[in-house]
Amino acid sequence: MKDYYMIGKRVPRTDSLAKVTGAAKYTGDLVLPGMLYGKALRSPHGHAKIVNIDTSKAERLPGVKAVVTGKDTLGWKWGVFRMTMDMPLLAVDKVRYLGEDVAAVAAVDEDTVEEALGLIAVDYELLPVILDPIESMKEGAVKIHDHVERNCYKAAFEFGNPDEGFRNSDLVRESRIVTSKISHSQMEPYGALASYDHVSGKLDLWIPNQSPFVKRRALSHALGMRLGQIRIHHCNIGGAFGGRSDVQSAEFIAALLAIKSRRPVRITYTREENMMATRQKHPMILELKIGVKRDGTIMARSMKVIEDGGAYASSGLVAINIPWVMSEHVYRTPNLKYEGYLAYTNKTPCSMMRLQPHEVHCAEDSLMDAIAEELGIDPVEIRLKNAIKPGEVLPSKSVVTSCAFSETIEKAVAESGYREKRGKLGPGRGIGIGCSGGIAGFNLGIRAVSSAFIKFDEDGGCTLLTGLVDNGQGNESMVVQVAAEELGIPMEDIQLVNGDTELTPQDPGTYPMTACLVSAEAVRRAAADARRQILKVAAERLNVNPKELDIRDRRVYVKKNPEKTMPVDSAVRLSFLKGTPISGRGESVLKAHSEKGWSYWGELKFEGQQGGAYTFGTVIAEVEVDRETGRVKVTDMWVATDCGFALNPTAVEGQWQGGTAQCLGLTLYEEHQWNEQGRLLTDSFMNYKLPTSLDVPNIKCIIVESMDPDGPYGGKEVGLGSTLAPGGAIANAIYDAIGVRVKQLPITPEVVLKALRDKEKRK
Amino acid sequence: MKDYYMIGKRVPRTDSLAKVTGAAKYTGDLVLPGMLYGKALRSPHGHAKIVNIDTSKAERLPGVKAVVTGKDTLGWKWGVFRMTMDMPLLAVDKVRYLGEDVAAVAAVDEDTVEEALGLIAVDYELLPVILDPIESMKEGAVKIHDHVERNCYKAAFEFGNPDEGFRNSDLVRESRIVTSKISHSQMEPYGALASYDHVSGKLDLWIPNQSPFVKRRALSHALGMRLGQIRIHHCNIGGAFGGRSDVQSAEFIAALLAIKSRRPVRITYTREENMMATRQKHPMILELKIGVKRDGTIMARSMKVIEDGGAYASSGLVAINIPWVMSEHVYRTPNLKYEGYLAYTNKTPCSMMRLQPHEVHCAEDSLMDAIAEELGIDPVEIRLKNAIKPGEVLPSKSVVTSCAFSETIEKAVAESGYREKRGKLGPGRGIGIGCSGGIAGFNLGIRAVSSAFIKFDEDGGCTLLTGLVDNGQGNESMVVQVAAEELGIPMEDIQLVNGDTELTPQDPGTYPMTACLVSAEAVRRAAADARRQILKVAAERLNVNPKELDIRDRRVYVKKNPEKTMPVDSAVRLSFLKGTPISGRGESVLKAHSEKGWSYWGELKFEGQQGGAYTFGTVIAEVEVDRETGRVKVTDMWVATDCGFALNPTAVEGQWQGGTAQCLGLTLYEEHQWNEQGRLLTDSFMNYKLPTSLDVPNIKCIIVESMDPDGPYGGKEVGLGSTLAPGGAIANAIYDAIGVRVKQLPITPEVVLKALRDKEKRK
Repeated sequence: MKDYYMIGKRVPRTDSLAKVTGAAKYTGDLVLPGMLYGKALRSPHGHAKIVNIDTSKAERLPGVKAVVTGKDTLGWKWGVFRMTMDMPLLAVDKVRYLGEDVAAVAAVDEDTVEEALGLIAVDYELLPVILDPIESMKEGAVKIHDHVERNCYKAAFEFGNPDEGFRNSDLVRESRIVTSKISHSQMEPYGALASYDHVSGKLDLWIPNQSPFVKRRALSHALGMRLGQIRIHHCNIGGAFGGRSDVQSAEFIAALLAIKSRRPVRITYTREENMMATRQKHPMILELKIGVKRDGTIMARSMKVIEDGGAYASSGLVAINIPWVMSEHVYRTPNLKYEGYLAYTNKTPCSMMRLQPHEVHCAEDSLMDAIAEELGIDPVEIRLKNAIKPGEVLPSKSVVTSCAFSETIEKAVAESGYREKRGKLGPGRGIGIGCSGGIAGFNLGIRAVSSAFIKFDEDGGCTLLTGLVDNGQGNESMVVQVAAEELGIPMEDIQLVNGDTELTPQDPGTYPMTACLVSAEAVRRAAADARRQILKVAAERLNVNPKELDIRDRRVYVKKNPEKTMPVDSAVRLSFLKGTPISGRGESVLKAHSEKGWSYWGELKFEGQQGGAYTFGTVIAEVEVDRETGRVKVTDMWVATDCGFALNPTAVEGQWQGGTAQCLGLTLYEEHQWNEQGRLLTDSFMNYKLPTSLDVPNIKCIIVESMDPDGPYGGKEVGLGSTLAPGGAIANAIYDAIGVRVKQLPITPEVVLKALRDKEKRK
Repeated sequence: MKDYYMIGKRVPRTDSLAKVTGAAKYTGDLVLPGMLYGKALRSPHGHAKIVNIDTSKAERLPGVKAVVTGKDTLGWKWGVFRMTMDMPLLAVDKVRYLGEDVAAVAAVDEDTVEEALGLIAVDYELLPVILDPIESMKEGAVKIHDHVERNCYKAAFEFGNPDEGFRNSDLVRESRIVTSKISHSQMEPYGALASYDHVSGKLDLWIPNQSPFVKRRALSHALGMRLGQIRIHHCNIGGAFGGRSDVQSAEFIAALLAIKSRRPVRITYTREENMMATRQKHPMILELKIGVKRDGTIMARSMKVIEDGGAYASSGLVAINIPWVMSEHVYRTPNLKYEGYLAYTNKTPCSMMRLQPHEVHCAEDSLMDAIAEELGIDPVEIRLKNAIKPGEVLPSKSVVTSCAFSETIEKAVAESGYREKRGKLGPGRGIGIGCSGGIAGFNLGIRAVSSAFIKFDEDGGCTLLTGLVDNGQGNESMVVQVAAEELGIPMEDIQLVNGDTELTPQDPGTYPMTACLVSAEAVRRAAADARRQILKVAAERLNVNPKELDIRDRRVYVKKNPEKTMPVDSAVRLSFLKGTPISGRGESVLKAHSEKGWSYWGELKFEGQQGGAYTFGTVIAEVEVDRETGRVKVTDMWVATDCGFALNPTAVEGQWQGGTAQCLGLTLYEEHQWNEQGRLLTDSFMNYKLPTSLDVPNIKCIIVESMDPDGPYGGKEVGLGSTLAPGGAIANAIYDAIGVRVKQLPITPEVVLKALRDKEKRK
């Protein structure tokens, strides 16, 4: 194990102090001189034509500085892919979900804004509201989007020969699971601050985001402005989880209002707006079929998934494939049949979420356990037999490089005492196992590249410029830690400037899971570039070969004679005096990168390298189930994950604990509910049940390191890996406790009780 | 003449629109949430010990959030050189000029601030006030600084053998000229905005400056903070002219108040404070002696200069040498004897000014004319005979590279009709000639290097990062124009980020006249770096050798087949897709650069290369003198300057018109006056006479280009060159008009009338 200076150490995150003391400012805390407050008028109907909007009374209200409607826009529509650019950021002629932005007001204070909203008169022509994806896809259902047949998209293909695979199976079993619509529930409510300079024509924005470059590009189209005229600033972001990559109405509307009113405008969503009008996660109806040999070897898998995407497609064409993309690297599947549907409904639009598709793993792990039980095979053995190994080629022809999946299974099992406990914990208590995996670096064409710059100050400190943003997962700390390692200087000597479209170079953002594999690697290379220059200066001064030198704690030293040193700041100063000031430049790209760019995605079949690297994880959960109430209490969890290398073990464990808690929420508590008119009933934390610290069990994190050849110091990614596995572990633990298999998520007490009753009936 | 795309063209400056519409915000316009107003209590005495300061009443006043005195400081003292670090930024135990900062208050509004200042009780022990530099240097004069003998510094040396030079002269003539203390009179009043984050320990500042890195370094010492903890932001700056390079009390005090009050604090000076408490320009008593051969060839020069530096030295050790440094490259001087004194007085401290040492050129050109008259030589011929030529080695052993000095003389003479008009314009009217020169790039050790970064956006636009600041001379526009030229894209496609210590690389700033020679050259190299990468991508795509390509108007084209093109944005996008995103990095250093750094300057003898390049200029002025009133009216001026190459002729002419108007002010109108207690009487534009547009004559600018081998596109510098010459031209024109030679500046009506009376007496 290399003796690193900073990497691999448990260091406090650079952002922690400001965040825990409340000093950190988020978009909703920012104030600009002359700032107005903005807010949207939202559709009270799930599906309707807009016949007329009369804003005249609102415009006349004293204190109102601007009112905008769809008529004030270019009518541009957002969508992640060209074929699904279906979302106006401010409704023009139709509303497609209850809560959609219909008009907006900017005024001097929030009370005036509310009053003005009430003065806007909208005439609607109601249309039938469709809330069920299956109903939506039926022949004759009213079209939510005129250009889309049957209100849906379909992705269907086969890898290998699944029919033959099933024919050659000794046992074929099926499973069906239904999950609920979920909110990402970022603690920071969404919003945006916009400021427009009429003389220069420049727009400044602060928006919670997952890549300021993605936001800017979309706004550039939406507003008809050049990229250079729009600047998305760095801001502290309180969570994203996949839901803040899309451009959203708030920033667009704030920009429109700022341009029209000639003053800065800030929009801050209430929690209700955050629930109702920002992205949710696709619920799924998943029909899974697995065929195995008698010894448990998987021969074929078949998946049919119906995803409810809500009113607009967003990144739905990714979501439609995610179930197989995110599971083909868990259990070996030589033959795969896939049929995926993305249906429109008159509900909040969905985008990707970190925990997607946790339900696939839940269903799969439940079915694997059932199959193992039927065949008399140990659940651990059946997993080890089918677990993907390093170097394997997946059905999509994607190659797995580093992989320590089996090790995660073995370690989780050993640490938890799974074998000793299974079936033996006593009445109402059980233990279960689940597995999942992540992808570090989705192939995203032009967005797959990151650059970084480093410039030095004469005292040996430096500034690091990178386009990477931090959504709370610790990316800012990570890149500083990486630079500190390469440069041999403490983290406090490095000032970070990041996530600003004007100041910092292009970066993929956090959506494609490239923060470590690509962004941190670009930073590492920039720091390595600067390091080479430092060593060159020092080598001349110390009269040695640069290879003989190392840097640690601000000192360059001769490895074989550590007394012989030169301070880094002296080397920097000397470089200034010599006229060759030390600076660093580095770039990195996803190896899976293709020049095909966007068109590749539009073909709806993802053949070839899916990502830069894969991560793997195993979760074991111990539960107590109360047969009377149906309540499931998770008492302990063991989470073993192969992340490649833990750059900062404390931060890594924090990620897994957070992700596990999130999946716990989706598995046991969280579900959205709608009434017949399409109104979201679960629009606050009063009735949308997010797990609290009291609900989260002891989580023991086990770091497994496979040392990826492409990641910086061997690191891959941390946000996924095992975080999609808790559902399967809990479902299997419930079976171990009370002998029932659940068919829907979340596993509420009602679901448990119903399953118990059904089991009774079958007897 | 090369067919440039952007360079050499008359383009509007990038900052003009915002500045003329009033949209541009200056430091005094900035507002931060919770901001307090700050102001200093100023000493009412010219020289006194501080016995006690009682701030208790002020602290108790409601609305007052912080009060600071010298006790709140580390007692660090500012000075440009180690041996003259004599200036506390907030008085500790003594005040040395009337108006010195003694204490300061931050409060919620300006009225409360004023009231609080009135509640601060300071006990002084008065000391004798010294206002005359000659009195100050006398034996027994009270010491203004305990550690400095005779209240002065001396620089005395000889180049060549002046005694022999004078002995070999056929004619030796002397002259004495006295000038007044002058204010730089920047239109933007000084001030500072400071904001401190207690959690991170970071200080943000906005300060009018000539290099944010110089300000930061000083504040780092003064506040005991690391460089990385202090960020000087970019701001619009309304003039500097050499007076805003020093760290000053305002920013230091604003920082102290912000730290103590835990809120942002803004200090904005009144015009009176700007006059009294920011740097002024050294007045001089100059005794000049020139020895010539009968044919007018200069054999030797002797200069004795007494400069009144005010209460603190600042950059006085540069000022003490400036008279010879700035004149040795005008008229050839094989032997030079120099004696310079910098005296302390109890007046506003002085620093360098753009127009320094205009009085030397005024005295020299007057004496040259007198010598020419006595020898019967044409004033133009005597100048042409002695004018420095390219390649010459100066007394200091500094080498002149590019030089078109003679051409400036010839062109100014031809354009103005000098020979036809001299002695023939009629009663009270005259024409005169004067010459001067500038230095592009003083040797400043560690500060002589500049770097630049360029990062691209996917639409082919880019951001340019440079540490260079703009004081109003058009530096920002210049670097954008240079980048546009190299990249072949319009200026509007380039976003500029500059002058920020955290974001942008180290830069010398505008003080050492390196903006074009070094900073713009670094930008040019960064753009050239990016250009090479663009051409490489395009060459592959177009299947040609990169040498066959050029870029213009956002298109790469084959020079011999211009129909064959590739848009720049396509090349940029392709580079992203390939994983080698185009970016630019460049650095440049002053060729005169030495590794000796600061110690070199401290030796007080400047032998060796003085700067990167030299500029030269000739001014001819036509005047009308009213013998009754003594009023001098300048009716026309011709300004011919060798700037190397005019990157933007409109901006260049603007600089010369402005500089000429400034020198006009110093020559005819501006003078500070003090009362016996050391109070500055001329503390506003009511009584300090700045020329208005009505006073400025027609100025015809003649651009002369010598194409410097080191400057970008041959450019050197623009701010100096000819701007120190108008004084001599006007003085000589007055002699042509009324036959008197003036011995002091400004040439007020009183001075003219006195000279006329003295002339009468001599008859």
